[in-house]
Amino acid sequence: MKNLELLNNKKNNYFLPIGGIGEIGGNNYLYSFKGEQIIVDGGISFADDSLPGVDITIPDPYIFLNTSIKPKAMILTHAHEDHVGGLEYYFDKIDFPIYCNQFTFSYIKHKFNKINDFEKKFVIVEDFQEVEFENFSFQLIPTTHSIPDPTGIFFKTLEGNIYHTGDWKIDKNPVTGSPTCFSSNIARLKTIISNAIKHDKKIFVVGRSIKRAINTAIEEKLIENFEILNEKKFQDYNKDKVLLICTGSQGEKNSALWKIANNTHNQIKLSAKDNIIFSSKEIPGNEKSISYLKNSFSYLGLNIISDEEEFVHVSGHPGKNEIKEFYSFIQPKSLIPMHGEYLHLKKHLEIAKSLKIEKTNLLLSGDLCQLDLVNKNHKLIEQFVIKKLPVVQNLIIEEDSFINERGKILHNGVVSINLILNKQFDIIKFQISDKGFPFSYNKEIIQDEIKDILLNKILFIKEEINENILIELVDEVSRKTYNRNFSLKPELLIHISLI
Amino acid sequence: MKNLELLNNKKNNYFLPIGGIGEIGGNNYLYSFKGEQIIVDGGISFADDSLPGVDITIPDPYIFLNTSIKPKAMILTHAHEDHVGGLEYYFDKIDFPIYCNQFTFSYIKHKFNKINDFEKKFVIVEDFQEVEFENFSFQLIPTTHSIPDPTGIFFKTLEGNIYHTGDWKIDKNPVTGSPTCFSSNIARLKTIISNAIKHDKKIFVVGRSIKRAINTAIEEKLIENFEILNEKKFQDYNKDKVLLICTGSQGEKNSALWKIANNTHNQIKLSAKDNIIFSSKEIPGNEKSISYLKNSFSYLGLNIISDEEEFVHVSGHPGKNEIKEFYSFIQPKSLIPMHGEYLHLKKHLEIAKSLKIEKTNLLLSGDLCQLDLVNKNHKLIEQFVIKKLPVVQNLIIEEDSFINERGKILHNGVVSINLILNKQFDIIKFQISDKGFPFSYNKEIIQDEIKDILLNKILFIKEEINENILIELVDEVSRKTYNRNFSLKPELLIHISLI
Repeated sequence: MKNLELLNNKKNNYFLPIGGIGEIGGNNYLYSFKGEQIIVDGGISFADDSLPGVDITIPDPYIFLNTSIKPKAMILTHAHEDHVGGLEYYFDKIDFPIYCNQFTFSYIKHKFNKINDFEKKFVIVEDFQEVEFENFSFQLIPTTHSIPDPTGIFFKTLEGNIYHTGDWKIDKNPVTGSPTCFSSNIARLKTIISNAIKHDKKIFVVGRSIKRAINTAIEEKLIENFEILNEKKFQDYNKDKVLLICTGSQGEKNSALWKIANNTHNQIKLSAKDNIIFSSKEIPGNEKSISYLKNSFSYLGLNIISDEEEFVHVSGHPGKNEIKEFYSFIQPKSLIPMHGEYLHLKKHLEIAKSLKIEKTNLLLSGDLCQLDLVNKNHKLIEQFVIKKLPVVQNLIIEEDSFINERGKILHNGVVSINLILNKQFDIIKFQISDKGFPFSYNKEIIQDEIKDILLNKILFIKEEINENILIELVDEVSRKTYNRNFSLKPELLIHISLI
Repeated sequence: MKNLELLNNKKNNYFLPIGGIGEIGGNNYLYSFKGEQIIVDGGISFADDSLPGVDITIPDPYIFLNTSIKPKAMILTHAHEDHVGGLEYYFDKIDFPIYCNQFTFSYIKHKFNKINDFEKKFVIVEDFQEVEFENFSFQLIPTTHSIPDPTGIFFKTLEGNIYHTGDWKIDKNPVTGSPTCFSSNIARLKTIISNAIKHDKKIFVVGRSIKRAINTAIEEKLIENFEILNEKKFQDYNKDKVLLICTGSQGEKNSALWKIANNTHNQIKLSAKDNIIFSSKEIPGNEKSISYLKNSFSYLGLNIISDEEEFVHVSGHPGKNEIKEFYSFIQPKSLIPMHGEYLHLKKHLEIAKSLKIEKTNLLLSGDLCQLDLVNKNHKLIEQFVIKKLPVVQNLIIEEDSFINERGKILHNGVVSINLILNKQFDIIKFQISDKGFPFSYNKEIIQDEIKDILLNKILFIKEEINENILIELVDEVSRKTYNRNFSLKPELLIHISLI
């Protein structure tokens, strides 16, 4: 990648958002302090329909792995997937320590437990503990978000300091932790669970991620220990004696909740008189799936309670007033807004302006910013195009031509053409088959059409013909024939054999 | 289709929603009055991601075309695509008259103008004009919705009457038409256009559908005539002297608005100081695309005005109070809620209950209901599974196995395998190629793996082998080999030749 080398410049400081600014998810940032680089977070984002068949993408980590720069460390701010979810896909390539607090480590360690000595790559640090490097130090600052023990990062240098917020909100009446440490998910679970115990209800937990969250919270003594019943026993109890905690409220297909809604879950059947509470916010893009879930539960006769009806969701992110309160407290001299899409960043800048924060930079992922820590005159000096790489079967895919092919097949189908010719270029076998092609048709007619044009063309160039020219010819003639007959351009897989 | 014949029963009345109840879009209904059938509307819906690569679906019209029932007529309530959009795909198969009012006809006639004498299939009727059949009559009742001249249908029979609402809302202060006829789209355009003319602005209209709507409205004298400028002249004017009316606000890819947002439109370039107004509601499922649009315009520096900031959208559908007002006026003895998903229908029933409408039926598309027009004891007697058929290149596709294939390719890719054997079943050529497959791999290694297992199997069954058995074998061995190596199950296209 061009000019990445300049991050080794021993005179300057830089900030490069690899992912996470101007978008939702994929948080991954690089700071360089006079040639010493540090990575903050390594998250994933959910793929949209521009990546057909792909669920997860990751901002290209080869920006900081196997390149001309050698980061000194990585810091994880908190354990949400959009901040740490990428790590497991390039963990083996990391040759620098990963700093985080105890909860973040406990929450994510299961990802690595097949790897020998994986713990040795982690350094657990306390709140406010100062970790020193040559040109800078950092401290994790406890903050407030919808997971336990999230942190911001305070970087100190001789020239000036940086506060990297991470994800945060303000809550002065936390249910778990100290007054500056609120975690709505675990806190919400704590509230639900303690009420269930008080009312003598049996508790079932369905879904791997939520079981893990609860077990980590119990392990870290954030919620009291209790018995999670095996879901096979669910039908043994009267439903008014039962609390079921379940993942899948974003409408994820094949989640437990999806199966329950479709009445196809093996153990758990819900019906009229049962209540279901949707306590999480709808993430943009999931509206249709969530609507499908709610309609299905309604069809089963359930009573649905969601934040349209009741106050059951608390956001993990700050509102306008919280941002104002926070900046009035921090009093930054300059500001680069993080988290969210372009519109969010612009609104963030409007708030900064209203607070008389004079020096601001609106960056997007891939924008390399030279930091002037003395005068705060940061400036954009270069724009990199940083790819979002698809993750398939737990592997990061760098060569993404398959995406383009899938996109074409999605709308046009794929046709496989097999042509066997003798040495005189007479066709002795011609086979066509297809997948994902919408029309039924007489393959022999299409074959004859292709054959006629092809033989005619071969006749004209017989002297110069060879296998490669033949493949090109078959490709061109087949493509035109399908387009002429069906107004579609199927992807072609062509095999030619000269026998 | 089973039991469809019973709709010919000369003693009973029936209602069958073919599409449109329990879903958004695809409005298509069948009434049978003592053996006389009538179709109401013939709409499309937008395909969701269960139909990869398909934009439009249509509730299976072969329920009423080419079957044992012979409808006497079709009635169109209004010209929105979810009520009339299917018609063009089976217009040639319709051998009964289509009734609608003048505006609906004017608005949709362009769809058929390549067909000789297409007008002869249409019968234009006036508001309240009674059209008589043997066992029933109907009248179009002018109503109120976001398109000009929408109608409900009043069916009269000797035993009792039915009011089929169509889409509607109440507006007592209409901008166009008589006090019961409001059309927010055209009315909104009228307001915008007359203001533009008053302030001496040049008017550009971009997008085929909106140009057609405006031209129809001018033709039907619903808005005053004005000059629509050619978009090639857009850059000739100062932008503060220009009004641009544009389609694509739902984030439709490749629409004019999409191109303008991406700054790739040939004629129209917008920039800082320009204002853009989003005056339409976000249709569920489009949130992410619309958000992309707004972010892109924000990135270009435009000032964005939408209903989050200003009152710029008016819904074309009724709220709770309007429904109450409407039913208090109509005073139905029984009610079958239409339009919308299951949750909407249930809320609709709650309103009916609060108004003491005692007899209600909650039907879904495919539910056949026997109507008791005397005592209003309607009852569900049969449930049909009515497919949503994909429309591809303007053709209705009945055989939909390609959908399943596309779904598999989307997640696994497709592999084409070509195997040439001699008469002794020795492999003399083996080729593999793929599309949409995410991993790069050494094809020879995979070929050798398949070859080894295959030859071993052939050895064991050599006596009984033939081409079909061979294809099955290759399919099985290849499938397992790909799954073992990549944990993926690509679709396979296999060609075997015995030379």
